[in-house]
Order: sequence, then C-alpha cells, then structure tokens
Amino acid sequence: MERYGVHRSREPRGVLPQQARVLDTSLPLRAGEVLIDVEYLNVDAASWLQLRNECGGDTERMKARIAEIVSAAGKMHNPATGSGGMLVGTVAGLGPERSQPAVGTRIATLVSLTLTPLVLDEIVALDPASEKVRVRGRAILFESGIFAEVPEDLSDEVTLGVLDVCGAPAWMARLARPGMRVAVIGAGGKSGMLACAQAVRSVGSDGRVIGLCWPEPTALATKEAGAEAIAVDCTDPLAVREAVTGALGGRDADLVFVCTNVPGCEGGGILACADEGRIVFFSMATSFQAAALGAEGLGKACEMIVGNGYVPGHAELALDLVRRDPVLLERFSS
Amino acid sequence: MERYGVHRSREPRGVLPQQARVLDTSLPLRAGEVLIDVEYLNVDAASWLQLRNECGGDTERMKARIAEIVSAAGKMHNPATGSGGMLVGTVAGLGPERSQPAVGTRIATLVSLTLTPLVLDEIVALDPASEKVRVRGRAILFESGIFAEVPEDLSDEVTLGVLDVCGAPAWMARLARPGMRVAVIGAGGKSGMLACAQAVRSVGSDGRVIGLCWPEPTALATKEAGAEAIAVDCTDPLAVREAVTGALGGRDADLVFVCTNVPGCEGGGILACADEGRIVFFSMATSFQAAALGAEGLGKACEMIVGNGYVPGHAELALDLVRRDPVLLERFSS
Repeated sequence: MERYGVHRSREPRGVLPQQARVLDTSLPLRAGEVLIDVEYLNVDAASWLQLRNECGGDTERMKARIAEIVSAAGKMHNPATGSGGMLVGTVAGLGPERSQPAVGTRIATLVSLTLTPLVLDEIVALDPASEKVRVRGRAILFESGIFAEVPEDLSDEVTLGVLDVCGAPAWMARLARPGMRVAVIGAGGKSGMLACAQAVRSVGSDGRVIGLCWPEPTALATKEAGAEAIAVDCTDPLAVREAVTGALGGRDADLVFVCTNVPGCEGGGILACADEGRIVFFSMATSFQAAALGAEGLGKACEMIVGNGYVPGHAELALDLVRRDPVLLERFSS
Repeated sequence: MERYGVHRSREPRGVLPQQARVLDTSLPLRAGEVLIDVEYLNVDAASWLQLRNECGGDTERMKARIAEIVSAAGKMHNPATGSGGMLVGTVAGLGPERSQPAVGTRIATLVSLTLTPLVLDEIVALDPASEKVRVRGRAILFESGIFAEVPEDLSDEVTLGVLDVCGAPAWMARLARPGMRVAVIGAGGKSGMLACAQAVRSVGSDGRVIGLCWPEPTALATKEAGAEAIAVDCTDPLAVREAVTGALGGRDADLVFVCTNVPGCEGGGILACADEGRIVFFSMATSFQAAALGAEGLGKACEMIVGNGYVPGHAELALDLVRRDPVLLERFSS
C-alpha cells in the first residue's frame, strides 16, 4: 500500500491519502517517493473561487487561509469544495528505491493536491485574479503519483493548459482507427480541440471527424483543430443526432467523445453513436445514471467509457500535438 | 426520430418521450410500434415507496394517485421521483411496418414506464406491500423499445427478477475470456450472482472468479453462484484490494464488475484492477466523478465502462443461466 501513500495518512490511519484529514509530511522519504521543491501551486478553479469569496477577494486573507489549510491538513485540500489542484516544482530528492526523475528535473504533478503531502515555508506571491500561487515549500509524490516533465520549449501557461486535458487526445489515439467516423461533442473547448486534432491524425483521409460546438463562435476553434465544425446546442439530443447523421450521410458515428463542460449531453452522444460503437465521456458534468439509463431507454448497445484522465504517455502525446501545430499552440497560449 | 417515439411527445413537442411531460396515447399505431394489452405494471421501487408514503399506505388513495398520474401524463412517470418501472402484457397489434412479436405473445417491456405511452381503463388490484399493480389498459412500445418474451416455464416472479439485472451477465459474457482473473464486487445480490455465474462459465477451469460480498451472510449466495466468496466491506478500497490480490496470489484482476447497491465502491474496484484491465460499473450508486478522478489519483490506466443495461440477447442469456441452474432458480424464486 506504500505505492499509494497509505503510510502518509495520519488521521485516520490506514486510509488512502485523499480520504485522510491529515497527512504526515515528515522526512526522510520512503521507498518510492519523490521530494519536490515547490515553485507554485495551481489551485483548482472551484477551490479558488470559494477561497476568494470567503476572503472577500483580499490578498493577505487568502494567503493566510491557504497557509492555515496546508498547515492543518498537510495538503492543500480545500475543506469547503473538497478539491485541490496541481503544483510545479523541481525534484529535490528520491526515495531509496527510486532512480528517476533525476534530481533537478522541473516537473508538474498530475495527481491532485488533495492527496499530496505539502509543507509551505512562505507564500511568495498571490493575485486573487490568478489561480497560480508562488510559494516556497516542499511536497512529496508517491510511487503511484503521475507527473510530467515541464518542457523548456513551451511556456508554463501552455504546458499547464495542455496537461489539464491530456487524457482526451490520449484516449482518442487509443481508440480511433483509420477510416472511422468520429464525433466530438463540445469540440470548441481545450479537451475537445485536442481530441479533434488527434482524431484527424488517427482516422486519416478515409475517416471523418465531426466537431459539434456551442455557442456558434467556438466553431472557429473547432475548425482550427481540423474537424468539420457544426454549431449546435449539445444538450439537445435530437439536434445532436441530426447534426451528426446529417453530416455523415445518414450514418451514425463509430466513436463519440463527449468533451462539453455542461450537464445533459449524454443523450446526444448516445443517439449519435452506432449500435456497436463507443462513447467516451470526458466531461466532468457527466451523470453515470443518465448515461446508463439513457442507453437502455433508447435500446442502444454501445459501449460507454468513463474518461480516465490517465493513460501512459498521455502528457507527451498532448504536448507534442500542440508543439507541432502552430494554430493549436496559439490557442493554448492565449 | 419515429424510431424513438419523438412523434408521441405532446408537451413539449419534438423531444424524446422520456423528457416530455405529456405523451400522445392515441391510435392508430405508427410504423414500427407495438400495441400491448397491459396485464400489470411493476412500479420502480423508489417510486412505489414515495407513492405509499404520500398516500399513507392506503390502497384506494394509491390507486387514485396512479390513475391521476397516468391520465395526466399519458405514462406512469412519477413526478416526485422521476422514475417509472416496467410492464407485462400481451401483444394486441403491430404497426404497418412491423411483423413481430406475433399478436398474442406475452412480453415484458425492458424500457422504462417513463417513456411508454399508457392508458389505464381500470386498476384491478393493488397491494401496498407489492410493487405489482394489476390493471386493464393499453401501452405502446416504440420501434427502439426493448422487450423480452415472458417464458412459460418460469414464474413471473423469477422472470422479472432476472430481467431487472440481465445486463450484468450479458456484459460478462462479452468481456470475460478463458483463463481470466475476474473479481465481482457486490457478488451476493441478484446482478452480482448472475455476473458470477456467467463469469465461471466464461473463464473456464484456468480462470478465477472472486466474489466479494457484504454483509457476511451473503457469502452463501455468492458461493452458490459458483464464485470464491470473500466477505469484506466493499466501500473500503484497501480491504477490497487486499481481499482480491490476497486470493490471487498477489496479482490484480483482469476484469472487475461492480454490482453493489451502495455508494463508495469505485476505489476498491480501481485498486483491485490490473493496469491494463477493465472495470464495468453496474451499480446505479456509481459516481462518474469518483471513478474518473479516482483512477487518475491512483495512476491507474484501466478502462472503466458504464454498465449499459442493454446488450442484444441479454434477456435470453440471463434467463437461460437461471433456468439451467437449480440453485440460482431457487434463489430467484424466493
């Protein structure tokens, strides 16, 4: 269980670190752990909004509240929202059974701050308008904790934006095959754009990639990602189906990715998918119940997949997509 | 869109029938529809409980309330719970473009009453202690509406109990292969038992089927379904993992089915599954967010599938499992 950091759960003991109220941040490192000199925290948007409201938008009060949370819990786990964020820092030490990443490597953690042991010596700079908090401190990454090296040729802005959604293009690369008909619902956002960009590369010239987006102005981003853009209200299942089958000459999609950020998009995904097709839900607004009962009610036997944010190699794949495409790079820079 | 019954949505028009407040129940039948002489409704458990509470457990008031709902909405869609149920009846007519099931066939609908046009002439018998309401009336099944013939060699009790969970063994038959290591979490309930029974048949003598169940006395049912039973609190992820890897000599499961009826079982499923394995969530208490974020937090790349209640042939497969196994038949009869 050390692999998952269970030994770091102090209150209560014996649970996974995300479930613990208090983590043990003490040194020395255990077998597979990584020590990180933390440069900044990138606090989860929901947590940030709550902290800002609670502190009336006051910089010093926000600093004090963050210091208080981390000091009490040994992690930046906002008790009001239950959410965390991620961090960027430099590898400062390795546990006795670990040999990489090399000390000195600059990395971004891809696991939540709600399970990452953290000690803050100082909050160096905080702007209520940005979720990026510059700090001095140290964090511990477990053996199971996923991370990405921060590339030197991209700005941190671009890197963090891409890493936040890198599961979507990686799953697309896993599931899309040459000649397939792919539909991406919510194609104008960050995860949707990367999903489209990967889909175009995976299906090749015999395939099709339909990008549904809303509102209308997001169609430009969808086109820039290489998809055939259609502006349609993605919460309207019949409109979604008509848009997809209309574009595909009456046929359904073999593979559907749902990348929206609003609830109620399950029905459209199901109706647009072929009976023997697959749907991958990447939207955190997805309802398990709406998906399961919706497919049954519509008599659709399609396979529906929970978009797992982790696939080995996902960070490198997504960063490469953006690095090699000037238009995407521009989108993620702005 | 006629396939999905959109033409039957009266208020508002143009939506899927489940979303409509009022359905059009008028005749004649349209192209692919089936007319059913309804024998009884099997009301959803959550809806039944709400109706019974609302009516103080009074038979006549419950009858009146059901008649009122169906008369107003043209379907048995409980406005308080949003849920429906299913019905059993005899095919009384077919739309002009449909040739089966033959008129006279006794069928159970496998789509929700929340999307099934229904007219009640009389509520013949109702017992507040049972969710089965005997009625005289007619219902309409759309072209997309799934159903099963009610077999003559099994009691209705057994048939309805099996049909309610028939997706689980059908997905097991689709995904389990000879030699696989399978774990079923929540193996002592109806869907878990059928999943185990199918798993044992699919993995063969080189495979393993571990059935985790709780509380302790359900271990007998799990064993009767053919699995190696382990009693463990399935909401404790570490205990679940230890039980599974302990039984498998330190290895993870290739395929995990989560069939519990309580929330909080996602973590155990994820920890017990191999990195390249698959998890199918059949529990309606599953949280999409807990599954997606849990896998990422644990650095697990497993594929997670939303248990779609429909797979072609699922009813026949599940009924056959029970029909051929005297012990299962006894379980479903009681």
